[in-house]
Amino acid sequence: MSSQPVSAAQYRQLLGLRSQLRRFLKWSADEARRHGLTPNQHQLLLAVKGHDDPRGPTIRDIADYLQLRHHSTVELVDRARDNDLVERHADPEDGRVVRLSLTPNGAERLASLAEAHLEELDRLIPGLARLWDGSSEAGG
Amino acid sequence: MSSQPVSAAQYRQLLGLRSQLRRFLKWSADEARRHGLTPNQHQLLLAVKGHDDPRGPTIRDIADYLQLRHHSTVELVDRARDNDLVERHADPEDGRVVRLSLTPNGAERLASLAEAHLEELDRLIPGLARLWDGSSEAGG
Repeated sequence: MSSQPVSAAQYRQLLGLRSQLRRFLKWSADEARRHGLTPNQHQLLLAVKGHDDPRGPTIRDIADYLQLRHHSTVELVDRARDNDLVERHADPEDGRVVRLSLTPNGAERLASLAEAHLEELDRLIPGLARLWDGSSEAGG
Repeated sequence: MSSQPVSAAQYRQLLGLRSQLRRFLKWSADEARRHGLTPNQHQLLLAVKGHDDPRGPTIRDIADYLQLRHHSTVELVDRARDNDLVERHADPEDGRVVRLSLTPNGAERLASLAEAHLEELDRLIPGLARLWDGSSEAGG
């Protein structure tokens, strides 16, 4: 590992970065609630819609995207189904495997949240990149 | 707001971004625990060290950095003091104001965590920026 001690500028940079991430995550959680979703439900809908397989993600895929345990994922999916956000259906090739899709209601809420997030991230990501470039110089 | 519907590529991009952020935050929390700290204690130490005022941050500053309520912040600070991570001292100009500094033990643990985080973020931030640039094109 590096033998350089961490500079004061690098500590400020790490703090700035974490503060920006924390504000973004709080903003995102508040936005989800404003759309009648828990933050985890929002992330579930995004994982179903963004999954790169037209058959839809499995419970295991969702657990991996959301870094949740299997039983927490099942609970989240079941509650989202009760709230008319997602549908479960059996995989056509292996009936034991459950795959997920969005209901029209789930798709509509996600679309509105996604628009707001694209705008917010168009500010956040370049800001983080600038903060990081600046700090490499300051710390070098 | 934009009247463009959100594209499939943009949903994949949003999912990729959130998955990367979630993995980073999980990695960071695990690293903190490996250094004998809770994730919030790690963020507290970083906020004390990265604060841009040599007198040290106040409780209010910490609450703002960590987006915590006042009483949760006081609880976090008190526990960190009991664990020999931070020190509380009265502001020299206003004795009612508490300011914080790191103990040698707190500074040492933070330094080791900061080195690991600088390396990890040197991978994460350019990766997020590339993912974001790619997606603006895909979605445009």
